[in-house]
Amino acid sequence: MATDSTSGSRATGKLSSSTSELFGGLYARGGVSAAVGDEAWVQAMLDVEAALGGEPLRAEDIDIAELGREAADHASPVVPLAKRFPDTHPGATSQDIIDTAMMLIAKRALVPLLDDAGAAAEAAGRLAERHRETPVMGRTLLRDAVPTSLGLEAAGWMTAIDEACRAVRKVPLAVQMGGPVGRRDPTVAASVARRLGLAEPVLPWHTNRVRPAGLACALGLLAGALGKVARDVTLSDHLREGVPGRGGSSAMPHKRNPVAAVSVLACTRRIPGLVATMLASMEQELERAAGAWQAEWGTITDLLRLTGSAAAWARDLIEHLQVDAVAMLAAVGDEPDLGAASELIDRALEAHRR
Amino acid sequence: MATDSTSGSRATGKLSSSTSELFGGLYARGGVSAAVGDEAWVQAMLDVEAALGGEPLRAEDIDIAELGREAADHASPVVPLAKRFPDTHPGATSQDIIDTAMMLIAKRALVPLLDDAGAAAEAAGRLAERHRETPVMGRTLLRDAVPTSLGLEAAGWMTAIDEACRAVRKVPLAVQMGGPVGRRDPTVAASVARRLGLAEPVLPWHTNRVRPAGLACALGLLAGALGKVARDVTLSDHLREGVPGRGGSSAMPHKRNPVAAVSVLACTRRIPGLVATMLASMEQELERAAGAWQAEWGTITDLLRLTGSAAAWARDLIEHLQVDAVAMLAAVGDEPDLGAASELIDRALEAHRR
Amino acid sequence: MATDSTSGSRATGKLSSSTSELFGGLYARGGVSAAVGDEAWVQAMLDVEAALGGEPLRAEDIDIAELGREAADHASPVVPLAKRFPDTHPGATSQDIIDTAMMLIAKRALVPLLDDAGAAAEAAGRLAERHRETPVMGRTLLRDAVPTSLGLEAAGWMTAIDEACRAVRKVPLAVQMGGPVGRRDPTVAASVARRLGLAEPVLPWHTNRVRPAGLACALGLLAGALGKVARDVTLSDHLREGVPGRGGSSAMPHKRNPVAAVSVLACTRRIPGLVATMLASMEQELERAAGAWQAEWGTITDLLRLTGSAAAWARDLIEHLQVDAVAMLAAVGDEPDLGAASELIDRALEAHRR
Amino acid sequence: MATDSTSGSRATGKLSSSTSELFGGLYARGGVSAAVGDEAWVQAMLDVEAALGGEPLRAEDIDIAELGREAADHASPVVPLAKRFPDTHPGATSQDIIDTAMMLIAKRALVPLLDDAGAAAEAAGRLAERHRETPVMGRTLLRDAVPTSLGLEAAGWMTAIDEACRAVRKVPLAVQMGGPVGRRDPTVAASVARRLGLAEPVLPWHTNRVRPAGLACALGLLAGALGKVARDVTLSDHLREGVPGRGGSSAMPHKRNPVAAVSVLACTRRIPGLVATMLASMEQELERAAGAWQAEWGTITDLLRLTGSAAAWARDLIEHLQVDAVAMLAAVGDEPDLGAASELIDRALEAHRR
Repeated sequence: MATDSTSGSRATGKLSSSTSELFGGLYARGGVSAAVGDEAWVQAMLDVEAALGGEPLRAEDIDIAELGREAADHASPVVPLAKRFPDTHPGATSQDIIDTAMMLIAKRALVPLLDDAGAAAEAAGRLAERHRETPVMGRTLLRDAVPTSLGLEAAGWMTAIDEACRAVRKVPLAVQMGGPVGRRDPTVAASVARRLGLAEPVLPWHTNRVRPAGLACALGLLAGALGKVARDVTLSDHLREGVPGRGGSSAMPHKRNPVAAVSVLACTRRIPGLVATMLASMEQELERAAGAWQAEWGTITDLLRLTGSAAAWARDLIEHLQVDAVAMLAAVGDEPDLGAASELIDRALEAHRR
Repeated sequence: MATDSTSGSRATGKLSSSTSELFGGLYARGGVSAAVGDEAWVQAMLDVEAALGGEPLRAEDIDIAELGREAADHASPVVPLAKRFPDTHPGATSQDIIDTAMMLIAKRALVPLLDDAGAAAEAAGRLAERHRETPVMGRTLLRDAVPTSLGLEAAGWMTAIDEACRAVRKVPLAVQMGGPVGRRDPTVAASVARRLGLAEPVLPWHTNRVRPAGLACALGLLAGALGKVARDVTLSDHLREGVPGRGGSSAMPHKRNPVAAVSVLACTRRIPGLVATMLASMEQELERAAGAWQAEWGTITDLLRLTGSAAAWARDLIEHLQVDAVAMLAAVGDEPDLGAASELIDRALEAHRR
Repeated sequence: MATDSTSGSRATGKLSSSTSELFGGLYARGGVSAAVGDEAWVQAMLDVEAALGGEPLRAEDIDIAELGREAADHASPVVPLAKRFPDTHPGATSQDIIDTAMMLIAKRALVPLLDDAGAAAEAAGRLAERHRETPVMGRTLLRDAVPTSLGLEAAGWMTAIDEACRAVRKVPLAVQMGGPVGRRDPTVAASVARRLGLAEPVLPWHTNRVRPAGLACALGLLAGALGKVARDVTLSDHLREGVPGRGGSSAMPHKRNPVAAVSVLACTRRIPGLVATMLASMEQELERAAGAWQAEWGTITDLLRLTGSAAAWARDLIEHLQVDAVAMLAAVGDEPDLGAASELIDRALEAHRR
Repeated sequence: MATDSTSGSRATGKLSSSTSELFGGLYARGGVSAAVGDEAWVQAMLDVEAALGGEPLRAEDIDIAELGREAADHASPVVPLAKRFPDTHPGATSQDIIDTAMMLIAKRALVPLLDDAGAAAEAAGRLAERHRETPVMGRTLLRDAVPTSLGLEAAGWMTAIDEACRAVRKVPLAVQMGGPVGRRDPTVAASVARRLGLAEPVLPWHTNRVRPAGLACALGLLAGALGKVARDVTLSDHLREGVPGRGGSSAMPHKRNPVAAVSVLACTRRIPGLVATMLASMEQELERAAGAWQAEWGTITDLLRLTGSAAAWARDLIEHLQVDAVAMLAAVGDEPDLGAASELIDRALEAHRR
């Protein structure tokens, strides 16, 4: 992917989130939330306008609340933006600006998202290495089966996260520059793509939603991989979260709650329904959809934010996981056969490093 | 339903929303958004604490951002709230406070939501009355079929909205006061219910989620009924939105976009996935769920806000709808047979008034 | 609900299912499957035709495979059916026949479905009574909290199932007789309703889908309540399934798998997505939808079958549940305080009996 | 992908479907249905057993109904299968057999599925070529905008289908051979993979569900691309379905219904909810999930069948589409500017041929 020559680096900084502060610790942990907030969206739209030849502008100079109010009369925030800065909007349509901004938002948000997910996989890899010989009672259908290696469980987490991250990285984030009905000269798209560090599509994709829906799907896979880790932790009395001061219960002082695992699951449980919305939104009418397109904006924002939060929480969870190997061994009995566990862990670590 | 003796009336006022300002005109129109914002949630939690005998407190005196940050260490905003005001928290658990606050939020948000939906139905009723003899070409499978009455179409919209509103009103909003594991003395629940104007359940419902999921389903039905109206408007060249200054296209001055209908659909299209999340969240483990419960908070908030926005937009749409009866008649031909349309409209209006 | 004067009683009998035989033990247990199979659908359509004044016919005399093949040319099985028996089809449209047949299918399928769900609740009630003083360690966020009563857990299951069954029973199953575009004389609907034991709606509901979507939602609530029971059983080593010969593992002879609980969950996990499809299908265009309506037929069939199977499995699960009270007590310690558990169980049983 | 050296070629033949015959014309068109039916599933399981060194067996020699009944006692059809043919089951677990069979089913079903989808794209490409200069009024938000080229619309359909098919082809269909808890010697997996023409995974993926969920997502993208084509056809009075004898209305002889487009949509509308189920099923507990895994079997079967049916219907739709170019031109006015349409069509056709 080419370099993002505009102000992308700012987007992961201190740009305000636009979600709940009350529930933000749960649903909006990590760097993704700022990268998909209102200011980041406005900046992305301004960056697209600039890449089209307009004057570079900064989102912090815009009154976003007022812009949002005016947007209601157009079912699009681009129309009032274009009115405000007529010189910066050389013939681009709302759809060109918003679709390309969505891809730019995704590109920027995926940096912290994949960083956290990658660190989670890395931490799982360290657990796999360290606990390759640590026996744990394998459980199938939630009943004791035969022993396995804790390191192999962790290697399974790592491999799943890696595979899902690969799917996320493969989503072709491309500009969309079709003009009013999709027949705009493709050299414009090529030029904007170069300036923004996005791919150039074969055709304008104004009503071909394989890209945004494919992004949603890849995020869904990653969320699923992260949720599996968290579920395993909640189900094991011998895995404990290791961040001091966290997870205390007000009513029951003896209790330590699996806060990070619960937070991962609070995010990942919300993902499948959002992916379904993105897939249902693919049925877009003729040259611009009446409803399905506009439903995407909030949905993709939520998908990025929630998957990003799940990744940040999962990283925190796995990096600090405490293993009670003594209790695990006691539950298993002496010197269990761990089969090909160690060999499998080696295979997994090797694939991870590639 | 008993009177809400606490500060509920404030909740529909100027309490800050906690959603995107940029997309708020689309997704957060009307009075519901403020009633489900961060400040409204904190106020609802404080009201539950007060109903338990604590000192009455006001959300505006709380630093919500700080509360949210501390909440992350507990997967619950109640723990830091209780720490801050230890006297106000006489033995209630996080789940008691949050579940009951969720019901209070719903009760308060349903006031503007049902007001807007009711006004939309009322406006559809006026169209039904006025256009009972206005012929329009009926279209089945999106192909011309035989003529029908535009008033009958509008009567169908009204009846569907009415039926869905009835489903929303029937959801039994009740306190949840089970204590740590659900075996708390039911007189506490009875007393809190009385003070908050909520129903008293047979049992604590900490892991029986028929109530929140049932609320989600009823909102899903209402969103579906509203989306159908908007879809019909987008599909008819003879129905136009009548708010001056709205719907102009920057690129194509001759064009008038169906902004309100598109905005309704932008909201309603996001609902089915959210309802699926609430239904999937019913599988809650033992005495308190690890993930499924915490996934509900943001989801029910989004469901209320989006359905509320759809209702506000639908009211606006139907109240200002302009009918080109001349063009409709031209498409139909002279003096079509409208069958039992007028009689059916009378039946519908009579049922509406009951 | 009025009596079904036609051949409904046959529908729960030996009519062939139309789902997988291989996976049918899992997804199609109990009496619902036959009541929603191909033959039941055809019989329901024939019964509607008969209620319209046609000659009574029997599904077993129809070649359903051939009918299905011809249906492909019309996106409706009613057209070839009407061609075959022209006398039996006095002016009804495909939509009238299919919508009303869908309600008849639902009415018939709900008999075994509610019977199984009711028996599951009844069995949970017996557990509540028997184990009102049996202590069990309460678990919140899947960590040990404080003791509670196993009977109270079971009472919670019972109450949730009862509440969901009530929601299912309240769905207003009504005929739909609108004619080609929804303006048919309502006396026809009244007469058909009387003959079929269905309710009479205010208006034809050809594109007002509150009824089918509301049915889907109620089934979703019931599935959620059943899934919670099964989840709890899988999570407790002290609850065992008690059907001899079931749950043995081929590879590990010492193991007893929670087959019934797993089967309940295999069904209930499939429900939320199906409900989302029904809600998304409410956006039906003008006088007959192009796609959304036709998507309902298979979806509502699956919803009934899977919820019915979950109910049959849950009944089997709860009726044969074995409780290891000794191990439970050992995990808790002597004479725990069970709070208001017994009083709450009495309240729940009293409400159940009402 | 390596050659499938076993009996895969039979699977697309006359093996019985296991879905509704009544609605099969709608939901089960084309070759996929037989490739995912009961007999195909049993054959796939037998083929996996044979690849493990067992005796080759044929599904047609098995009483599937009886097998299904016995499967209910084990929440798995593999246990009774293994009992029946003890020699053919050398230590493989239910999960190994079913997971690998699922991949084999997918591999075989994707042959007719991608064949139909490819033919649909090919037909769209022919339309793009033929109608590159055919003007049509572009419609945005379902209102007339400015003219565009019908060929460009068709090129957009083709490109979306191509991109989605590429996503389907990229799903790594691999064997799963973990043994009871996932630590089986990987040389077994390698050998089975070779024999079945499937990929060899890094690790057993018994509870890493990126593969089946990724397959579901890719099918979701393809369904979305196909649904968009069908939606466009339903919305244009100038596009007609050209299969003689199809689409006649019993009640209204003048009417021609868009049967193929409606049938595509009847299938594609059911997909997003099913994908959500597969994504939610990724949260699989420890070494074998209790419920989430078993929910996948029917869901992936439905996803393949419905997407396959949509592809078969879309092929039929596009191959026979009739264009009323005269009426289109009349709606547009003389000699409209079609911008870069022709150049874009060339780009699209070139990319299609690669």
